[in-house]
Amino acid sequence: MSRKSLPIGIFDSGIGGLTVMQEVVRVLPGEDIIYLGDTARVPYGTKSRETVVKYALENAEFLVYRGIKLLVVACNTASAYALSELSARLSVPVVGVIEPGARMAVGITRTKKVGVIGTDGTIRSGAYFDAIKKIDSKVVVYLRTCPLFVPLAEEGWTDNQVALLTARVYLESFVEEGIDTLVLGCTHYPLLKRTIKRVLGEEVVLIDSAEATSHEVRRVLSEHRLLRTRQNRGRFKFFVTDSPQRFQEVGIRFFNAPIKARLVSIGN
Amino acid sequence: MSRKSLPIGIFDSGIGGLTVMQEVVRVLPGEDIIYLGDTARVPYGTKSRETVVKYALENAEFLVYRGIKLLVVACNTASAYALSELSARLSVPVVGVIEPGARMAVGITRTKKVGVIGTDGTIRSGAYFDAIKKIDSKVVVYLRTCPLFVPLAEEGWTDNQVALLTARVYLESFVEEGIDTLVLGCTHYPLLKRTIKRVLGEEVVLIDSAEATSHEVRRVLSEHRLLRTRQNRGRFKFFVTDSPQRFQEVGIRFFNAPIKARLVSIGN
Repeated sequence: MSRKSLPIGIFDSGIGGLTVMQEVVRVLPGEDIIYLGDTARVPYGTKSRETVVKYALENAEFLVYRGIKLLVVACNTASAYALSELSARLSVPVVGVIEPGARMAVGITRTKKVGVIGTDGTIRSGAYFDAIKKIDSKVVVYLRTCPLFVPLAEEGWTDNQVALLTARVYLESFVEEGIDTLVLGCTHYPLLKRTIKRVLGEEVVLIDSAEATSHEVRRVLSEHRLLRTRQNRGRFKFFVTDSPQRFQEVGIRFFNAPIKARLVSIGN
Repeated sequence: MSRKSLPIGIFDSGIGGLTVMQEVVRVLPGEDIIYLGDTARVPYGTKSRETVVKYALENAEFLVYRGIKLLVVACNTASAYALSELSARLSVPVVGVIEPGARMAVGITRTKKVGVIGTDGTIRSGAYFDAIKKIDSKVVVYLRTCPLFVPLAEEGWTDNQVALLTARVYLESFVEEGIDTLVLGCTHYPLLKRTIKRVLGEEVVLIDSAEATSHEVRRVLSEHRLLRTRQNRGRFKFFVTDSPQRFQEVGIRFFNAPIKARLVSIGN
């Protein structure tokens, strides 16, 4: 089997990475994809760098062992903490979600004031701040953690009063600061887009890193001459580290097709 | 060393069990205690029975290996899924948080209508329903999952508008159903007591299983002639599976004394 015909590997701490997979499928419909959701150890956003790096390496090892041509780290916290370690250790190219989102934000902002929201881990790591400053040091970056957005998205409370009130508390300072671009630095946040827009106004552009990442995946595959050229649609395999049931149920909100996941044991 | 002088072992998925430990210390100030918070794999409430049982057994093994005279499962989800398995496998007595809370609720209710709130796992397991019905089959039990209460408590949003609005959505049906007693079936929920009371009214009694459990611990120790009789105050040791920093910071909201925790590796 040629390397070209190997699948793309994607991992996330759980369900959120399905929004990234969805975009990759849209941009590269012919590619096979293996998705791993580490649902037994989700969430990563509140855990330490050491723990997240360990989990990320174990997840990557599982996918590489099955044979992949490129790894997508579809989790902002894992990208923030573990991307350089993964790139250094693996023989396949590795794409994270942070750099593509940062590049897109810098390309779009006119006021040079960019907001970034994410989990504790992602924000504390400084990864978005560094990535944006490296592309354009003149951009002013405003950071904010939004710990309740993930449980709200998983509860399906994305458009109710609780979501709106929570978004007001988290985001109102951005309005005064005058940002014109907001990076949704967590794969769960796109589900709250409408509510976020109600607080920030229609003129603020929301950057969904899933979209930016899918283009980066195509670029890297093309650069390595690993793009698959065929007419058939790709096949998908889903693996989870906790019972597939909840993943399959909640996954429908994140991925517009039925999901059949298999339970695997990782890190034991 | 006599068995009597061994410490009590307590484990929880994370921080919440500190409310149980606090009560045990109040009731049994002379006992030494080892606490284990499985912060690398928290939360348990959204995970499957198989996964929670596996984690519970690994946590128990860690504590038993260090030498304890009694094990407290200070996590409702772990008590719901793993208590019988733990009791069957361990040579020390095991106390969970569900049965004591259920017994207290049945003793207090006058209308024979009891509400129980908890995580997905705790409620779905049916453990509270079974425990209450076993004590008094005439009691009508109303169950409700409250997934957002844990993240609200950890964010420190226990008395604001978001907490109040969330509590209204979750609890309003209890008012119509006419319960006079509500079991807080998750160790995080006592932090939201004031907000819960604002929704349900002052006349509904809130059962904090931490309190009920501490009396059960004393009873079981006494029954096994394992109560420690000394004047000195006991010593505490804290272990966590993820970085101690966040546990120590957030732990202050749950345990009224400074915490110094040590990182250990479990299940690898």
